[in-house]
Amino acid sequence: MVIDCHGHYTTAPKELQTFRDAQVAALEDPALAPSTGPLKISDDQLRESVQPQLKFQTDRGTDVTIFSPRASAMAHHIGDGRTSLDWSRHCNDLIHRVCGLFPTNFVGVCQLPQTPSAPLANCIEELERCINELGFIGCNLNPDPSGGRWTAPPLTDKSWYPFYEKLVELDVPAMVHVSASCNPNFHATGAHYLNADTTAFMQFLMADLFKDFPTLRMIIPHGGGAVPYHWGRYRGLAQDMGRPPLKELLLDNVFFDTCVYHRPGIELLLKVIPADNILFASEMVGAVRGVDPESGHYYDDTRRYIDSIEWLSPGDREKIFYRNVGKVYARFVRDRPDLID
Amino acid sequence: MVIDCHGHYTTAPKELQTFRDAQVAALEDPALAPSTGPLKISDDQLRESVQPQLKFQTDRGTDVTIFSPRASAMAHHIGDGRTSLDWSRHCNDLIHRVCGLFPTNFVGVCQLPQTPSAPLANCIEELERCINELGFIGCNLNPDPSGGRWTAPPLTDKSWYPFYEKLVELDVPAMVHVSASCNPNFHATGAHYLNADTTAFMQFLMADLFKDFPTLRMIIPHGGGAVPYHWGRYRGLAQDMGRPPLKELLLDNVFFDTCVYHRPGIELLLKVIPADNILFASEMVGAVRGVDPESGHYYDDTRRYIDSIEWLSPGDREKIFYRNVGKVYARFVRDRPDLID
Repeated sequence: MVIDCHGHYTTAPKELQTFRDAQVAALEDPALAPSTGPLKISDDQLRESVQPQLKFQTDRGTDVTIFSPRASAMAHHIGDGRTSLDWSRHCNDLIHRVCGLFPTNFVGVCQLPQTPSAPLANCIEELERCINELGFIGCNLNPDPSGGRWTAPPLTDKSWYPFYEKLVELDVPAMVHVSASCNPNFHATGAHYLNADTTAFMQFLMADLFKDFPTLRMIIPHGGGAVPYHWGRYRGLAQDMGRPPLKELLLDNVFFDTCVYHRPGIELLLKVIPADNILFASEMVGAVRGVDPESGHYYDDTRRYIDSIEWLSPGDREKIFYRNVGKVYARFVRDRPDLID
Repeated sequence: MVIDCHGHYTTAPKELQTFRDAQVAALEDPALAPSTGPLKISDDQLRESVQPQLKFQTDRGTDVTIFSPRASAMAHHIGDGRTSLDWSRHCNDLIHRVCGLFPTNFVGVCQLPQTPSAPLANCIEELERCINELGFIGCNLNPDPSGGRWTAPPLTDKSWYPFYEKLVELDVPAMVHVSASCNPNFHATGAHYLNADTTAFMQFLMADLFKDFPTLRMIIPHGGGAVPYHWGRYRGLAQDMGRPPLKELLLDNVFFDTCVYHRPGIELLLKVIPADNILFASEMVGAVRGVDPESGHYYDDTRRYIDSIEWLSPGDREKIFYRNVGKVYARFVRDRPDLID
């Protein structure tokens, strides 16, 4: 069993983007607003649209993808809370339909209707809808709804707490995941994503968030940004600040995925971070789409790198490939006891 | 011979901070302005102040430190161009005096009087003063003078070009180095520094800066932020964008230091990045000051990690420890032919 905890619906039918384009255009000219009601997309279109993901699952020997809307398209900095809510509901509804069509291949994680200026109240409602009504098992939480301006308070600020209370109550984790950058300094997948991962980890290190929420689980994607590479720096910073050792401080609550696109990076991750804190992921179909001419394989075929680490014990391999999912995404197991042996 | 290309004067006599405090206070109340003229700091005070650096050099077996003002204190977001110029001149003058007192131990690199709103004109003048009059061999260039708001254009924007022309003319490199963060999201040494390193690399990847300036050299510190750990991602992104391979695109011009504070991180860096592009550095006395209880040694004693990599060839070790300095910091060799054999 191999579960990919980080897949985005980057191949949705064009009708989704058409809706979004109209929605954005309507911010300038209300006459251009898209029609309300469900998008006119057939089940056949949806089946066709996820063929790339299904083919990669078959080719790479992965079984289930924890599947969420395209991260770069969340773009919470556009419009207001209403804009984000309408957009998120459409995106989440499509994920729900795909999961319904391929219930053994995809499990849903939702986009939140965040917006730079508003509180997280409307996010709680959409989170509850997705978890309780659509059967989703987690959410993507954007630490920077301003899209590269970083105007929100840190994730450890009390203003985020009502949302965390709901995560704990629903027993679902959040993946810390930014979206597109409207700051020309930050390329989305080449800088903003990794910076956000690094930033969030350091915020967690400095605060007592997990003392306040001992069962809250956060996944830091993209292999944890710069964190495992600089694990010595973080251990030293925590020590200089008089904080507890990182393991004690964070590793009951913080998990890293394996979206690192070369073998040396994966090997470092597996050496430095305990296997209990690593979840298999490939981010497919995602940030990097090409085939590495040096290896002849897709850069994002991360299973191949892990398979090649000969010193990884079978027990740790199982944890990374699927057992940790049961711990982090509690509803995954609750709803599908057949999926974890 | 071991040359540490990244040391900051974090131990300056308190008179320097007293000046700065008065300068900042004067922004609110001009009556509090510090007196003009040189700071009243004796040579004995300066000698005493760098004893920690000299002791680390002896204890760790390093010979020369390329020495610049405290990076986190540059704080270009405070005040205006005049504020930054007065502050930079004092900081640079102290570096010059330390280098004069210990000419075989320290070689100077300057802080620039950057400011968020102004062009780089006053930076050129101070750069010329430091290189031509004070004998410095490079500068620290802040890609985000706003201190975590990231309001400047990317480093590849044409507005930076007059400054790069001067770097090329003087034949000196720039280390890309941000300063303190006034954005509560970003801890300086735990997030902002690494994010800036990552951000700058991706900016370089997307633009033709080094086609326009084939001899321009940039050092990305802190082991390159997240870059070596995600080298596969960057190779793939360049490929997806139709850019040349990274080696061809960037590695005549971009160099990484070894400020990575654990052996697995250093090993990854040495595996992934060609030895021609790595410069030894420890950032001492710097970001992390403690002793690692697991090893019994200082986290920032980076020489120890490199020494322990048994597969590193003697030739590559020499490049990293000192030979590459001759290539990147051309004036280091020109002014001190005795220092490189």
